[in-house]
Amino acid sequence: MRHKFLLSIALLPLFSIAQKTQNFKYIRPLIGTERMGHTFPGATVPFGSVQLSPDTDTISYELDGKYNGKVYEYCAGYQYEDKTITGFSHTHFSGTGHSDLGDFLIMPTTGELFLNPGTATNHAKGYRSAYSHKNEIAEANYYKVKLDDYNITAELTTSQRVGFHQYTFPKSEKSHVILDLMAGIYNHNEKNVWTFVRVENDTLITGYRQTQGWGRTRTVYFAMSVSKPFKSYGFQNNDDKNIYKGFWRKFDQSKNFPEMAGRKLKMYLDFDTNENEKVKIKFALSPVSTSGALENMKAEIPHWDFEKTKNEGQMLWEKELQKIEVETISEEDKINFYTSMYHAFINPTVYMDVDGSYKGLDQNVHKADGFTNYTTFSLWDTYRALHPLFNVIQPKRNADMIKSMLAHYDQSVHKALPVWSHYANENWCMIGYHAVSLIADAVAKNNADFDTNKALEAMISSSNLDYYDGLEYYKKLGYVPEDKNGASVSKTLEYAYDDWCIAQMAKKFGRNDIYETYSKRAENYKNVFDSTVGFMRPKLSDGSFKKEFDPMDTHGQGFIEGNAWNYSLYVPHNPESLIELNGGKEKFSKHLDELFSMNLPDKYFANTEDITRDGIIGNYVHGNEPSHHVAYLYNWTNQPWKTQEKVRMIIKRMYHSGPDGLGGNDDTGQMSAWYIFTSLGFYPVAPGSPDYALGSPLVKKATLRFENGKLLEIDAKNQSDKNVYVKKIELNGKEISKFITHEQLMNGGKLTFYMDKKPSK
Amino acid sequence: MRHKFLLSIALLPLFSIAQKTQNFKYIRPLIGTERMGHTFPGATVPFGSVQLSPDTDTISYELDGKYNGKVYEYCAGYQYEDKTITGFSHTHFSGTGHSDLGDFLIMPTTGELFLNPGTATNHAKGYRSAYSHKNEIAEANYYKVKLDDYNITAELTTSQRVGFHQYTFPKSEKSHVILDLMAGIYNHNEKNVWTFVRVENDTLITGYRQTQGWGRTRTVYFAMSVSKPFKSYGFQNNDDKNIYKGFWRKFDQSKNFPEMAGRKLKMYLDFDTNENEKVKIKFALSPVSTSGALENMKAEIPHWDFEKTKNEGQMLWEKELQKIEVETISEEDKINFYTSMYHAFINPTVYMDVDGSYKGLDQNVHKADGFTNYTTFSLWDTYRALHPLFNVIQPKRNADMIKSMLAHYDQSVHKALPVWSHYANENWCMIGYHAVSLIADAVAKNNADFDTNKALEAMISSSNLDYYDGLEYYKKLGYVPEDKNGASVSKTLEYAYDDWCIAQMAKKFGRNDIYETYSKRAENYKNVFDSTVGFMRPKLSDGSFKKEFDPMDTHGQGFIEGNAWNYSLYVPHNPESLIELNGGKEKFSKHLDELFSMNLPDKYFANTEDITRDGIIGNYVHGNEPSHHVAYLYNWTNQPWKTQEKVRMIIKRMYHSGPDGLGGNDDTGQMSAWYIFTSLGFYPVAPGSPDYALGSPLVKKATLRFENGKLLEIDAKNQSDKNVYVKKIELNGKEISKFITHEQLMNGGKLTFYMDKKPSK
Repeated sequence: MRHKFLLSIALLPLFSIAQKTQNFKYIRPLIGTERMGHTFPGATVPFGSVQLSPDTDTISYELDGKYNGKVYEYCAGYQYEDKTITGFSHTHFSGTGHSDLGDFLIMPTTGELFLNPGTATNHAKGYRSAYSHKNEIAEANYYKVKLDDYNITAELTTSQRVGFHQYTFPKSEKSHVILDLMAGIYNHNEKNVWTFVRVENDTLITGYRQTQGWGRTRTVYFAMSVSKPFKSYGFQNNDDKNIYKGFWRKFDQSKNFPEMAGRKLKMYLDFDTNENEKVKIKFALSPVSTSGALENMKAEIPHWDFEKTKNEGQMLWEKELQKIEVETISEEDKINFYTSMYHAFINPTVYMDVDGSYKGLDQNVHKADGFTNYTTFSLWDTYRALHPLFNVIQPKRNADMIKSMLAHYDQSVHKALPVWSHYANENWCMIGYHAVSLIADAVAKNNADFDTNKALEAMISSSNLDYYDGLEYYKKLGYVPEDKNGASVSKTLEYAYDDWCIAQMAKKFGRNDIYETYSKRAENYKNVFDSTVGFMRPKLSDGSFKKEFDPMDTHGQGFIEGNAWNYSLYVPHNPESLIELNGGKEKFSKHLDELFSMNLPDKYFANTEDITRDGIIGNYVHGNEPSHHVAYLYNWTNQPWKTQEKVRMIIKRMYHSGPDGLGGNDDTGQMSAWYIFTSLGFYPVAPGSPDYALGSPLVKKATLRFENGKLLEIDAKNQSDKNVYVKKIELNGKEISKFITHEQLMNGGKLTFYMDKKPSK
Repeated sequence: MRHKFLLSIALLPLFSIAQKTQNFKYIRPLIGTERMGHTFPGATVPFGSVQLSPDTDTISYELDGKYNGKVYEYCAGYQYEDKTITGFSHTHFSGTGHSDLGDFLIMPTTGELFLNPGTATNHAKGYRSAYSHKNEIAEANYYKVKLDDYNITAELTTSQRVGFHQYTFPKSEKSHVILDLMAGIYNHNEKNVWTFVRVENDTLITGYRQTQGWGRTRTVYFAMSVSKPFKSYGFQNNDDKNIYKGFWRKFDQSKNFPEMAGRKLKMYLDFDTNENEKVKIKFALSPVSTSGALENMKAEIPHWDFEKTKNEGQMLWEKELQKIEVETISEEDKINFYTSMYHAFINPTVYMDVDGSYKGLDQNVHKADGFTNYTTFSLWDTYRALHPLFNVIQPKRNADMIKSMLAHYDQSVHKALPVWSHYANENWCMIGYHAVSLIADAVAKNNADFDTNKALEAMISSSNLDYYDGLEYYKKLGYVPEDKNGASVSKTLEYAYDDWCIAQMAKKFGRNDIYETYSKRAENYKNVFDSTVGFMRPKLSDGSFKKEFDPMDTHGQGFIEGNAWNYSLYVPHNPESLIELNGGKEKFSKHLDELFSMNLPDKYFANTEDITRDGIIGNYVHGNEPSHHVAYLYNWTNQPWKTQEKVRMIIKRMYHSGPDGLGGNDDTGQMSAWYIFTSLGFYPVAPGSPDYALGSPLVKKATLRFENGKLLEIDAKNQSDKNVYVKKIELNGKEISKFITHEQLMNGGKLTFYMDKKPSK
């Protein structure tokens, strides 16, 4: 399947022109759109507020009143295997394992008008259309597809806050554009709270969609401008029974009536079109108001030149991708590298109008004063490598992200930093209070252009939210007791790491009392280690370890998104101590070897939706995050060459350039950030520390252009797919080993890896 | 019943002190709270944004899936006959025949916690409480009642945007304050669209309630401050089944969790209270945001002095009531007069934050620039006398109301002025486009401090909204055909009057083309007059009159809120022509006599909810508005003394000082404005004209203090309940008869009526 894909896209014109100077041309948005990657193939600019992308099904969260597991596959709206497209919606997460969004689905059609999408097998009776990958092009900020049912060519591009559609119609007196406000990703029957639409004139529509989903109180506003006046239009409210209609009954609101509101609206516009006539749509979003959306549109795309917007967006990508220039062993490596950069630079997204207005967690409108406000913080994933990567290559944005998080803290009634936040909402997904890691990491890396006093206050406050995930017990007992709060071991381990981050921050600012308190909390990982079995193990509130225990199982064992084998290696802030608990360096090395080589029986996959064999090597799970640092732990043993060997193995097995090229959810760029760091030869095992563990670079050469104006050249001498071992490493001619500091990196110069086919034991 | 009420309240201290210098003490908010008046007894300031008042039942719009007629009785939330109070909510219309609002019901309780109101007969199992009128005091901006079930004394007062509660508790460790966000007036199962609450700290709560009701997309924001920290609190969501709860499941949101959102929230606060301990609540509203509500609270009531707020509000009433000083024949007349002024000055209400921010019809936040923004325009009712009264005694506010209506027009996607608008919503209730009458009347009366060019544009645009209520047919045929659009005669007649208003406005500004067009449209009343029967009669689109026709019936006969007898007299802009159609002055007088004296059989009341025998004299319906000018039509015949006789009869029969003292819905002050004009001896038969018809004053003397600094003294010499006829009228010593102009009034001086017990034939 993967091979076939490469073959078919190789026939497209874009691929036949080798333009090596343009990094953005190596971006393949389709990577990760098949199976587990959960990426979307559509158009967006770096950290863009709009992600305009095709959706291929309308999976509901419920099916016959029960959770529909299939919804998980559609986190990004698109699955490569699907044969039909339901339409093009404006908001998508990239790579998440849960979702929301899919706002404002637009679909152009001809012929009989349908306001329901129909089914994949009976698309002739709905608005959806068959399509074929041979008629599909996905580039950075550009997506094109032919809709076979209607003979319409659809093209999509975006600016920061505006989706730009270009539909080439056949000749027809029955051409339509559907705007489905009811459609959405992870939909359920109660998801649409309210939808509101106004037809301002025959080319302009405004409105909003308010949903309760992953974001419990979430509203997105829009302004939609059409290049050609529609000849007629109409509404359908799919939820109008039992609803009080008042004196609106005096109107026929279904046809050419310019205002509609209700829970589940759909609308359509009618056109006469000539052969090959282009109907263009600019669809602006705002977190604040329809007037904000209109202003965003006027400011960003005051014209109807689709190519111009497309090119401008592609140049924005090029600018970002120029920050790291690589030479690779193969073209596929280069595709993977730049697509990883692309995926790493999609989320978090800018969340404010052109005038800086955004909706806060308190649902009030705030102004971002002196910073760019961002949303979509999947922090349990991204504290590990994505934000550390930003501290290297996007320091300005990362500081603004932290400012956005501090604004969230100010607005939070819990007085807590974000856990997993998006669109003026905290969704409380996953565990830990890893925002503290981001802050500590930025401070450790001298990228602290924010109020560090407030930040420390916020970190302390977040780590004392007693009603959060067993924290009250953790503070009292030194661990989360499994009988009081599930996934207790994962929580204990992650809290301990987070507490270490707070301690580092306090130390830096001379707050010794805090440093001591949190340094003590940081050792709590010891409380859940059972030396009799050699694993971290759930403990009960009476102090005893839970009896039933299967270290290979991920369910009901005290862990989340990982089993004891993987999570027991999670003490990123103190690998030495972890090794000691595990009986010393030698024993620990063997333990790691076993992890990578053992066979995990099938039964452990039975109830797991977010991990498949694709993302696993032995019992090492790369598709989920808790193990992302694990291959680097060999650096703390006497066998650092095994880090080199393993990371090169992982990078080759887990990343490919086909649609199924990601072995797990990209998780808003965390998987990609791991790829980038690892490709360059270093990795932040413990964010909050200025140190990186050195591995084995995948690139032959790389030039990193830092915002401080300095350049770092990475040179992997004698690089090849077989020469995965590092004989020697030099920084500006001086030999270093196993570790490098952030300061050393940011001072620039030359980092040379001498590669070899044999390990340097 | 009425008598008993007067007796019982006469025992209260307030009534025993005659403070003649303080007009506000004549205000009896209880007038109209029994049966048809639909007024509320609670606290508010003039044109106040908050109307904090007790609600006595929780009637739902539906009962077993069908319309529940009883909901109509609860337009203002309170019915005097009821024996229990469910709580105190913050928004109420005054006197409407339809409703909405009732936002944020607060109820103090002790003992077992109930979060449902219970029923009137089983109030022990709900939070509602029995109460007795003997423990009830209702004054301007002050309401007090003892809640018998809990031994709690409740007191209410307000500032412009803040409700101030003072609850005197008994000693209890189980004292509670319930905040029911689900409760509302005219509730139905789908009404609550979303509710959102944050416990900011142990004395401050913020949130909002979004509803779909009469206002289809309506949100009210609040900030609630409590004088004493609550010891615990909790939430209940009455709509949590089948709702996706996401990762919020990890919390127990029912108890001491500071954030909640859902469709149907209720919450409670717990306190320990000592004997007679006062717990006070300041509850601020905003049309825009919770932060706006908090700013409103800080600006208006920065303290906890209940008496101060009460007194300040009462002084605001006194200031308004000082504008007309009256001497009356009886104390009851004075009570009725000042209570009429009170009721006339409740709606429209100020609709903006202290900083001028308000939500517009487009749901965007706007700033009122250079004017005070008002909402709640019940224009079909109030164009007749309320706004004309404002042009006399509240010109500045009336001009601001018109500016508010022009802002509505700017925000309207229909490019139409308001019909019946409230809280950023057009609810399209009733008929006509009477906003044009308000504007034309303000212009005719030189109170045009607004953009008159835009106003004329808006008037023309409103009168050409083809999809509105048969207007397309009206423009084509000169009448609304009954087979195409119901209530066709009422619509035709009212459009014709409105068109005359537009014509007057155009004439004033020298726009002759418009004047001619609309003067022609203004004659369309002739098209529905059937001279063979002597009534206005529904006509079909083929030009024939509808065959079945009962001029006494109000249903299905082409009329709304009136029958042919009443509506056939509706040509306010051209009584001469109406009289001619009816066969001349003599015949017309007799026709009017018959109206007032005939017997309307019981069957005509069977299906009528908004009119009862209370509001009818013969077949003259005072309880609904279309006849409000009718008694004055005798002025155009040779028997003006019959106007004098009839208005004095109507005023005595339709207005009393008991709770059942209003013969029909007060309709946001229209009934009261009729009372005020009529009491003073003149009435605006055709708003848009500068002329008033002179009647027979009820007062002995009156002094009108105009905003232009001038005084008009009205002196009814030889006044008594028997001397209802006017022998002679002098303005500044010069005799006038039957009519007076606005200019004459506003120049001030002395208007003397010489009263007599016999008519001057």
